[in-house]
Amino acid sequence: MGSDAAMSPKITVELLRQLRHAMRNTKYIAEPIQAYIVPSGDAHQSEYIAPCDCRREFICGFNGSAGTAIVTEKHAAMWTDGRYFLQASQQMDNNWTLMKMGLKETLSQEDWLISVLPENSTVGVDPWIIATDQWKNMSKALAGAGHSLVAVQDNLIDAIWMDRPTRPSTKLLTLGLGFTGLTWQDKMTALRSKMAERKISWFVATALDEIAWLFNLRGSDIEYNPVFFAYAIVGMNTIRLFVDIKRLAVPMVREHLQLDTPSKAELSIQTAPYESVFTELQAVCASLVPKEKVWISDKASCALTQVIPKAHRTLIPYTPLCLAKAVKNATEIQGMKMAHIKDAVALCELFAWLEKEIPKGTVTEISAADKAEELRSQQKDFVGLSFPSISSVGPNGAIIHYRPLPETNRTLSLNEIYLLDSGAQYIDGTTDVTRTMHFGSPSAYEKETFTYVLKGHIAVSAAIFPNGTKGHLLDSFARQALWESGLDYLHGTGHGVGCFLNVHEGPCGISYKTFADEPLEAGMIVSDEPGYYEDGLFGIRIENVVLVVPAKPKYNYRNKGSLTFEPLTLVPIQAKMVNTDILTQKERDWVNEYHRQCRETIGAELERQGRKEALDWLIRETQPIA
Amino acid sequence: MGSDAAMSPKITVELLRQLRHAMRNTKYIAEPIQAYIVPSGDAHQSEYIAPCDCRREFICGFNGSAGTAIVTEKHAAMWTDGRYFLQASQQMDNNWTLMKMGLKETLSQEDWLISVLPENSTVGVDPWIIATDQWKNMSKALAGAGHSLVAVQDNLIDAIWMDRPTRPSTKLLTLGLGFTGLTWQDKMTALRSKMAERKISWFVATALDEIAWLFNLRGSDIEYNPVFFAYAIVGMNTIRLFVDIKRLAVPMVREHLQLDTPSKAELSIQTAPYESVFTELQAVCASLVPKEKVWISDKASCALTQVIPKAHRTLIPYTPLCLAKAVKNATEIQGMKMAHIKDAVALCELFAWLEKEIPKGTVTEISAADKAEELRSQQKDFVGLSFPSISSVGPNGAIIHYRPLPETNRTLSLNEIYLLDSGAQYIDGTTDVTRTMHFGSPSAYEKETFTYVLKGHIAVSAAIFPNGTKGHLLDSFARQALWESGLDYLHGTGHGVGCFLNVHEGPCGISYKTFADEPLEAGMIVSDEPGYYEDGLFGIRIENVVLVVPAKPKYNYRNKGSLTFEPLTLVPIQAKMVNTDILTQKERDWVNEYHRQCRETIGAELERQGRKEALDWLIRETQPIA
Repeated sequence: MGSDAAMSPKITVELLRQLRHAMRNTKYIAEPIQAYIVPSGDAHQSEYIAPCDCRREFICGFNGSAGTAIVTEKHAAMWTDGRYFLQASQQMDNNWTLMKMGLKETLSQEDWLISVLPENSTVGVDPWIIATDQWKNMSKALAGAGHSLVAVQDNLIDAIWMDRPTRPSTKLLTLGLGFTGLTWQDKMTALRSKMAERKISWFVATALDEIAWLFNLRGSDIEYNPVFFAYAIVGMNTIRLFVDIKRLAVPMVREHLQLDTPSKAELSIQTAPYESVFTELQAVCASLVPKEKVWISDKASCALTQVIPKAHRTLIPYTPLCLAKAVKNATEIQGMKMAHIKDAVALCELFAWLEKEIPKGTVTEISAADKAEELRSQQKDFVGLSFPSISSVGPNGAIIHYRPLPETNRTLSLNEIYLLDSGAQYIDGTTDVTRTMHFGSPSAYEKETFTYVLKGHIAVSAAIFPNGTKGHLLDSFARQALWESGLDYLHGTGHGVGCFLNVHEGPCGISYKTFADEPLEAGMIVSDEPGYYEDGLFGIRIENVVLVVPAKPKYNYRNKGSLTFEPLTLVPIQAKMVNTDILTQKERDWVNEYHRQCRETIGAELERQGRKEALDWLIRETQPIA
Repeated sequence: MGSDAAMSPKITVELLRQLRHAMRNTKYIAEPIQAYIVPSGDAHQSEYIAPCDCRREFICGFNGSAGTAIVTEKHAAMWTDGRYFLQASQQMDNNWTLMKMGLKETLSQEDWLISVLPENSTVGVDPWIIATDQWKNMSKALAGAGHSLVAVQDNLIDAIWMDRPTRPSTKLLTLGLGFTGLTWQDKMTALRSKMAERKISWFVATALDEIAWLFNLRGSDIEYNPVFFAYAIVGMNTIRLFVDIKRLAVPMVREHLQLDTPSKAELSIQTAPYESVFTELQAVCASLVPKEKVWISDKASCALTQVIPKAHRTLIPYTPLCLAKAVKNATEIQGMKMAHIKDAVALCELFAWLEKEIPKGTVTEISAADKAEELRSQQKDFVGLSFPSISSVGPNGAIIHYRPLPETNRTLSLNEIYLLDSGAQYIDGTTDVTRTMHFGSPSAYEKETFTYVLKGHIAVSAAIFPNGTKGHLLDSFARQALWESGLDYLHGTGHGVGCFLNVHEGPCGISYKTFADEPLEAGMIVSDEPGYYEDGLFGIRIENVVLVVPAKPKYNYRNKGSLTFEPLTLVPIQAKMVNTDILTQKERDWVNEYHRQCRETIGAELERQGRKEALDWLIRETQPIA
C-alpha cells in the first residue's frame, strides 16, 4: 500500500553499471549491445503485474503502471505519460532522464535511440515482454537508421536482480457451474467450433484472464486480478495447459480438470510446466502440414509469436476467448448482479459511517479506503479489491489515477469534495464504482460541474442505439453537456469489466481513443464513468457498471434491433451535488427511477442483513428530486 | 444525363475475347497473365473520372461510381456495393458475375481470385490506377496463395478500346487574389516551409484538386470538378508542373504562372508534358543524396510511388496541400458565403416555382433538376453543377445516390415527399444543399421522422466542442434522436467541401466510418446531412454546408478553446414537415434563428435581384415556429 520510500528517488548508479556490464557480457549475448529496452509488461502483456515482473521499477525506481526504460552505454531514459510526470520525477535519481510522453518536444523511443546511438548499433530487448506489433515498429524504425533490434533471450534485469521475488504460484480456485454457467468443456467445444469455422488447427492462449476463464479456474498470482500464470495450446483433439505442475496436485483441481479420468479423449488435458510452452509450441509447429493455421493474439509476446512460422501464423486482435468472455451468460449476469448488490450494501454503510465520522476530523483518504475494504470484506464470497482504491479529497481528486500515500494523505472534511473510485472481487462477480460526495455545502460551481458530469453519465446510460454499434460511438454523449460549457475530461468514458476477472477487459469499451473496439452486444458489461477535474481544486467522477441489454424503442429499422444499458451498480448519486435546474425532466426522471431501484434492491438486502443505519441513509439519499 | 441504353446490359462477349487475347499477347507482357484487374479510378485516384478513364464501365457496362472488374481466362466478375446491386445487374450481361460487397457470402477479390486461379498464376493490373495500399494488400494475399501480382505498364483495356475518348485538355482558368486570398507563390512558400520543418527535399503532388489549389488554376477536365490533369513535383528550389503543354500557350496563364518572367529563381516553374512525370521523377530520384526524403500521398498511384526508392520515400495520409486547402482563408470564406447566398436565391426561386407548378402535374424529377440548374446558371460567376442533382420523388428518395433517368423519372405531386440534393460551382465557391419538402399534407409519420432528422441536423450544427476534436466524434449527435426511436441512416453525416473545387474533399468530415480524419479547425468547411430512408416510400435528408468557427462558451478548459459551426447554406427548412412537439425549446429557437438569418441575408439579395415571388415565398417560409 505504498511506503515513504516510494517517493524518494532510488539510487541507481551501481545497478546501471551492472546492467551496462551485462550488455557487454557474452554470457548473455554473442555481441555487445549498445542499448537495452526494459518495457513494463510481463510475458502475458498483463495490465497489472506481479512483483517478479516489475523490472522497469527495479532498474529506475519508478513504480507507476505505464513506462518504458531504455539504457544505453551513456544514457538512461524512461518514458511515461502525463499521469506520472510528478511521481516519476520523484522516484528516479538523476542518472535518469524523464521522457514526458504527449509533449511536443519529447522524442519517441525510436527517435531518441537514433539520436543517441553510434552508427550501426544493436538494441536488445527481452522478446517475452514485448508484443509483436511493438517489436515490428521499433525494429523497422531502427533498421531505417542503420541500427538493428535483437532479441536477448536471458533477461538482463533478472541477471542483475539479486533479490528478485519468485514467480507466484498461488492456490487455484475451481469454479462450478453455479458461478460460470458453462463448464470448461463447453467452452472448449465452442472454441473449437470457432476454430473449425475459420479452418484453424491450433490456438495459443497467452492472456491470463482468457486462460482463467476458459478453464473456470482462478488464482491470485497478481494483486487485484484473480488470475494465475499459465499458457494453453488448444488443437482440435488436444489441450495443453502450461502451469506450475505443483498447483495441480490438489484433488479438487485434478477432478475439475478431469486430469485422471478424462471423459473424452479430445477433452483430456495434457499438463506441462509453465516454462515448457516455448519448446512445446515448437514441437506443435514442427508437425504442421502446409496450409495449417495457428491463431495467436497480436498482443502476445514476440518470443512466442515468432515460434509459429509466418506461413502458419494468423494474428488476431481479439481471440475467440476474449470475445466469448465479454458476452456474459445468464449465470454470470446473475452473479454480477449479486456482487453489485453486496458491493452497494458495503458502500451505503461506508457513506453512512463517513457522514457520522467526518465531522470529528479523524477520517483520512487511507482510513476511508480501509473502511470500505473492511465493509466489503464482510460480504459473502469477498475475495479482495479489484484495483487499488482511489480515495481522494479536494485537490487530490483531480489526479485521475491517485492512490493515497502517507505523505499525500488528506483528511476528509465538510469543506472539500470526496471522490472514491473502488471495487472488489467476489466469487460471483467484479465491481467498480465511483461516487463523488460533499459532506458539507458544495459551491455553486462544484454543483454545476457535477451536474454536467451527471448529464453525461445519464446520456450514456440511457442511450438507445442500434445493434452492432461500437462503444466508441457513444463517447461523445458523455461529453456533450461539458463541451457546451467549454469543459471536458481527458480520459475515456468506459471499459469492459470481467466477471470475477480483471476489472479492465476488452474488446469493448466507450472511448474516443479507440476505433478497434468490437460492437456492443447484449450481455456485455462496461463502465460508464465521465468526470471533470479542476487541477488543484477537486475531481468529480460518476461511475456505474452497466449491462448491455436489448431495448424496445417505437420502431425497428431494418430489423436490426436496439440496445441500451441497465445499471448493475446501485449506489445513490448524491442529490446535494446536483443543480436540478440544469437537468431536463427526462434526466430528473432517470435519477428518480435509478434511486427507486437502489432503494428497492439494496434496501431489501440492507434489511435482510440488519444494517439499519445504512438503510436509513439509503432511504434518505434516494428521496425523489424535484 | 443518362440514356435508355444505360439500363440495358452491354454485350461483352467480343470485348472479353479481345481482353483475354491481350492477356496472352507478348506485345504487352513478357508472360501471359491469368487474370487482369480493372479498378474504377484514374491515375490521380479521383472520385469523379473523365470518360477516357471509364475503363471498368467500358469492359463490363456498369457505370456506377464504385466497382472493380476482374477478368480471368474463364471468369469475369465485378464487385460493387449495395447502392449499385440493381443497376449493375441491369447493366452487365451474363458473361459477368455480380459480386455483392457487404454480403457475408460474397468473396473478397483476393479470395475469389485464389478460388478460381490455377496454381502459380500471375495477376496483372495497371499500376497507374491502383493506389499503393491496395497494391500491397492484393499482392500480399496473392503471394500467400502462391500467385503473384504484376504491374502491366500498357493498359490492356486501352489496347482494345477502339473509340476511347482522348484525355480532356480544357481551357485553364486563372484565379486572382480576390478569389484565392493567397498567391500561388505564397502557397508554394508555405509548402516549402512545411517541407523544411520535416526535412523533406521533394514533394510529389498527384491529387488534381491539390494541384489546382496550389497554382490557383482551374480546368474542366472532369465533369462537376473544376480540375485539370496535371502532376507537380516541388523541391526547395524547383517547381515542375506536368500538364498538356498546349494549355500553357494562353498569355493569361503564362503571366499567372510567370512562365516567361519569373520573379525569383526558386519560384520559376519548369513545365513539361503530363506524361513525362514518370521519367522526370526518376531523374529527381536518381540525384537524391542519402537520407533525402520525398513526400508522396499514400493514395498516389503505385506506378509513381514505386519510382521513389523506399529509403527516400515518405508516404503521408494527408499532404500539406490537403491540410492547407481544408482550412479556408478569409477570402475563400467570403467567397463561399457569396456563393451560398446566390445558391439560396436560386433555390428559393425554384421552390416558389415548384409550389405553383406541381399542382399542374407537369413537373418531373428531371425537369425540376433542370429548372434548378437554369436558375443557378442565372447567378453571377456560375460555372456548372458540383455533382449530378439527386432529384427524387417518393420511393426514389430512399435510393441514397439516386439520379433521375427517363425510365425512373417520377412526377412531383402533392402526395409524395420531394428530396433535392444539389449544388453548384461558382468561381467564388462550391455549394451542396439538400432540402426535403412536401407540397401537400405530409403524414404524421413523415413529419415525425423528418423532425428526428432535423434534431440530428441541429445537434451537429449547434454542437460546441473542444479545439482538436475530430469530426467523427460528432457523428452520433446526428443519430441520437433517430436511435431513440429505433431508426438510423446508413451513411456518414458530413464531408469536407472545397472552395470552387471538389464538393467532397479531405481530410475532415463527420462519419462513424473513419478514424483517420484530421481534427476540425476554425475555417474548415463541412456538410451536415443526416437523413432517414424508408425503402419503397420516401427519403429525408437535411443538408447544410457549415463553417467551423470559434465558440465562446462559459468556461475554457485548459485554455483549449472551443469550436462550433456556422451555417453557410441559408435555405428555409420546411416548417410544414416539422412536428414541433418533438422539438425542445432550444431546437425551436435554433430553427427560428436560422430562418431569421435566411430571411435577412437571402431576403436582401432577392430584393436586390428583384425576385419578388421568391422573396414572398422566403418570407412566408421563414415565419417563426411556435
